[in-house]
Amino acid sequence: MRTFRLVIACPDRVGIVAKVSNFLATYNGWITEASHHSDTHSGWFFMRHEIRADSLPFDLDGFRQAFSPIANEFSMEWRVTDSSVRKRVVLMASRESHCLADLLHRWQSGDLDCDIPCVIANHDDLRGMVEWHGIPYYHVPVNPADKQPAFDEVTRLIDEQSADAVVLARYMQILPPALCEKFAQRVINIHHSFLPSFVGAKPYHQAAKRGVKLIGATCHYVTEELDAGPIIEQDVARVTHGDSPEEMVRLGKDVERRVLARGLRFHLEDRVLVHDNKTVVFA
Amino acid sequence: MRTFRLVIACPDRVGIVAKVSNFLATYNGWITEASHHSDTHSGWFFMRHEIRADSLPFDLDGFRQAFSPIANEFSMEWRVTDSSVRKRVVLMASRESHCLADLLHRWQSGDLDCDIPCVIANHDDLRGMVEWHGIPYYHVPVNPADKQPAFDEVTRLIDEQSADAVVLARYMQILPPALCEKFAQRVINIHHSFLPSFVGAKPYHQAAKRGVKLIGATCHYVTEELDAGPIIEQDVARVTHGDSPEEMVRLGKDVERRVLARGLRFHLEDRVLVHDNKTVVFA
Amino acid sequence: MRTFRLVIACPDRVGIVAKVSNFLATYNGWITEASHHSDTHSGWFFMRHEIRADSLPFDLDGFRQAFSPIANEFSMEWRVTDSSVRKRVVLMASRESHCLADLLHRWQSGDLDCDIPCVIANHDDLRGMVEWHGIPYYHVPVNPADKQPAFDEVTRLIDEQSADAVVLARYMQILPPALCEKFAQRVINIHHSFLPSFVGAKPYHQAAKRGVKLIGATCHYVTEELDAGPIIEQDVARVTHGDSPEEMVRLGKDVERRVLARGLRFHLEDRVLVHDNKTVVFA
Amino acid sequence: MRTFRLVIACPDRVGIVAKVSNFLATYNGWITEASHHSDTHSGWFFMRHEIRADSLPFDLDGFRQAFSPIANEFSMEWRVTDSSVRKRVVLMASRESHCLADLLHRWQSGDLDCDIPCVIANHDDLRGMVEWHGIPYYHVPVNPADKQPAFDEVTRLIDEQSADAVVLARYMQILPPALCEKFAQRVINIHHSFLPSFVGAKPYHQAAKRGVKLIGATCHYVTEELDAGPIIEQDVARVTHGDSPEEMVRLGKDVERRVLARGLRFHLEDRVLVHDNKTVVFA
Repeated sequence: MRTFRLVIACPDRVGIVAKVSNFLATYNGWITEASHHSDTHSGWFFMRHEIRADSLPFDLDGFRQAFSPIANEFSMEWRVTDSSVRKRVVLMASRESHCLADLLHRWQSGDLDCDIPCVIANHDDLRGMVEWHGIPYYHVPVNPADKQPAFDEVTRLIDEQSADAVVLARYMQILPPALCEKFAQRVINIHHSFLPSFVGAKPYHQAAKRGVKLIGATCHYVTEELDAGPIIEQDVARVTHGDSPEEMVRLGKDVERRVLARGLRFHLEDRVLVHDNKTVVFA
Repeated sequence: MRTFRLVIACPDRVGIVAKVSNFLATYNGWITEASHHSDTHSGWFFMRHEIRADSLPFDLDGFRQAFSPIANEFSMEWRVTDSSVRKRVVLMASRESHCLADLLHRWQSGDLDCDIPCVIANHDDLRGMVEWHGIPYYHVPVNPADKQPAFDEVTRLIDEQSADAVVLARYMQILPPALCEKFAQRVINIHHSFLPSFVGAKPYHQAAKRGVKLIGATCHYVTEELDAGPIIEQDVARVTHGDSPEEMVRLGKDVERRVLARGLRFHLEDRVLVHDNKTVVFA
Repeated sequence: MRTFRLVIACPDRVGIVAKVSNFLATYNGWITEASHHSDTHSGWFFMRHEIRADSLPFDLDGFRQAFSPIANEFSMEWRVTDSSVRKRVVLMASRESHCLADLLHRWQSGDLDCDIPCVIANHDDLRGMVEWHGIPYYHVPVNPADKQPAFDEVTRLIDEQSADAVVLARYMQILPPALCEKFAQRVINIHHSFLPSFVGAKPYHQAAKRGVKLIGATCHYVTEELDAGPIIEQDVARVTHGDSPEEMVRLGKDVERRVLARGLRFHLEDRVLVHDNKTVVFA
Repeated sequence: MRTFRLVIACPDRVGIVAKVSNFLATYNGWITEASHHSDTHSGWFFMRHEIRADSLPFDLDGFRQAFSPIANEFSMEWRVTDSSVRKRVVLMASRESHCLADLLHRWQSGDLDCDIPCVIANHDDLRGMVEWHGIPYYHVPVNPADKQPAFDEVTRLIDEQSADAVVLARYMQILPPALCEKFAQRVINIHHSFLPSFVGAKPYHQAAKRGVKLIGATCHYVTEELDAGPIIEQDVARVTHGDSPEEMVRLGKDVERRVLARGLRFHLEDRVLVHDNKTVVFA
């Protein structure tokens, strides 16, 4: 069923829900899902509606025009999207295949509702897998001595593809600040630890050294500060003294896969709102 | 913060959300929480709002009067409750203390927002614990040859206490149909298995015999059919071949405790709606 | 590190551990992992050792010869395997790709230590995916009116491949008793429910109808009685009233994938012992 | 069933298992549980046996005498304990009752196999609860300007009670280094975060500020460095944007309770071995 997704964040005050609901009712909008959140700490209000597109008398542009006065009145940050317009997701990878293979399979079997215009990787190892799925593969090696040309090329490719989201499927390179800023809240990373524990390199080895009894993975938006962006989703798996770092790496792959897939799905369905370096996720 | 909780179930059709939100806005109601659910299978719609009581110009009765026309228009099953009016919960127990002790402690420490007018038990073992909490204890033994007098007395006590909920905290007796019906959707049981597996007696022994790798507990409303009422909450814990039935009993206690406490909390906060022997839980 | 895996089940009595450990010490065997289990209910004893192959003075045959007297003395059911000899695993599938794709990827990336000599499927849909991995694909359609020829062909293929294990990766056909018996404790199925709940067809629809709050998956050895064989591994995922059967199907795929992969891994590493329709899993 | 628990840590080399098993067999020891772990990274070996006491010809002292030569030969750190000799556990608390109430109930109902000679608290709030259980309550207030007298008194009480373990059941005071050292590997703390995240004060508020999607609790041995001792057990619970720090506090209590209870149980059953600021837990 095709829906419009209306996503709103604004300072909290009385009457927002009524105003929005009334607007939708005026046009006979059939609401299939509605979520609210008042953050009493920050004084902000968050809201998401799904409305059957065929119940409304206008298209997205018409919706935008009609809704603008309300948005202005309440100083809303807002967007409305059409569930039938697939988001364009550029995947970035390195040598590790588990997250990439998982996303490609979900996409191929129809469980991940998006287009994947291309995969960009700093190694050529995963070309075969990607091309078998019928997706273009761009090998953009990163020269450790001068990374900028590579990131210029990455930026060009993302722009060229009009990407709505960029997924770092274990890309293993730190994006430069300019790129983080340009695509703010559109670059999704999977970090292989339960953040804020074990930021940076080799988190499973850090975890083994500290002797934790659970390992985790964190899906978050990339910001300039490493592994410190808004968290979308996290999960953990149990480990014991018997698990070496290598076994943790293996066990962690399952956690990474499902955390990334869940986080990306939330993003694709416009369920994630960012405020104050945190997310509201209307799951 | 004192709120009114408006809980609605009705046949789904366009305009319900708008009508209700508009009603609330007309009276300047400040919505702090809102949840919707459209069940496309049954064609029913479910809705729950929390509204700051001090933002509304009327008390519960005034609310009811003002809202009635809308409720009638949409053929709603509905109720509105006041978060500051504590529900009265009668606890029933047998000899096992873990669920009872847990609920009493949560109540005493202020984590369980209700009154507990009394505990009814078919054995006298737990009197000391209950009375230490300052709660009356009624020992109502059940004569296996003729159980009716005991259940008459139980019914009398529940009525006398004007109970909003009855919690079978491992009561271990099957309630007669008349009692189930009289207090429908008000009697909450904790069953020590992951229903629908292992209905009836000694579920941990059944689980051990079947060799399952997880054990569970289920919190549900009691209906005439044994262990077949609407499920409110469930959870599981991992077991291995090394766990005897006795160890499963011990491990299961933790699951039972937290599943019952969560289920009861949902009930107390008017988060559970029952339809078609299933629950909608606006957690 | 190459190891020998010595797996033993026998009636429990004093001295077994000492005898076996002493045997290994006599030959300077370096034990890297040891697990025991006494089942007080059945009076059976289970034991598994991993011993560094390079610490022992003999090969598998030599081991078998040297150990036989002890095995006889204690009436052991036993086997010893070589970790460097990959087991041969025939995968069977139908149309659903998620379990098959997951196993193929784990195999390809080296996380699943086995050979996959072929995939057998009753539909032709997944040929491309399988052949891209360089694995032969046999399409053996099952004629509903007369299934025996198909199962004869399946049996022939399994025999021809000298399979150590057959994995039903959502094969969706019920194997005939003769086949179950012939490959007893070698055929591994993934059932998409938390057994013993929801045996048989469309378990997610059964789960949705019952209104459970968790869905699950079960990896088990196939026996003649449907979905009643020894359970190797299980896990669950949380669902809500908002999840339709179709969404449960999607959410369940993740559980199925990881439960099957874990169960198969246990089998491949000779960690699973079957007794009395239950498993001992030395995880 | 009364058992002796033999717990060993020593540099790894061939023949340890055989030597120990052979020793036990020589005396007809009936092994009911056996666990090994080789840490290839540190080159240490860990081992735990439970042996039926009635199968052995000696008492603990006799066991110690007989086993000493082997212990010396392999440079073992070792101990042997008698399951029928209950450990003495001093509980320490402050004002929060949830962990204390939980442990007292488990103890009273026979699920926690230990003696609790007394509770020490820096406030007097929980006296009634403790004394109702028939356990002496010592109120030792801590003067912020000079804490040493209080800790001297605490030390005196622990010594007087010959405590085998001290449990900080949300004690909320930092123990001085001398006390940590004197009772090394005997003081068990429950920290209300998933360490190493959110060390120190108000971890739930830190968690809310970071926007994590899971909160946790960690049971660990206390060392001089705050919240940095060897981790015994951890677990987590899911939270959302909707959970305020106060709600996280409430949700976290359940995690704290069960993590502390599990960790303490492992300690009481001599299942925890400490090496290199990490634990081996033979669960």
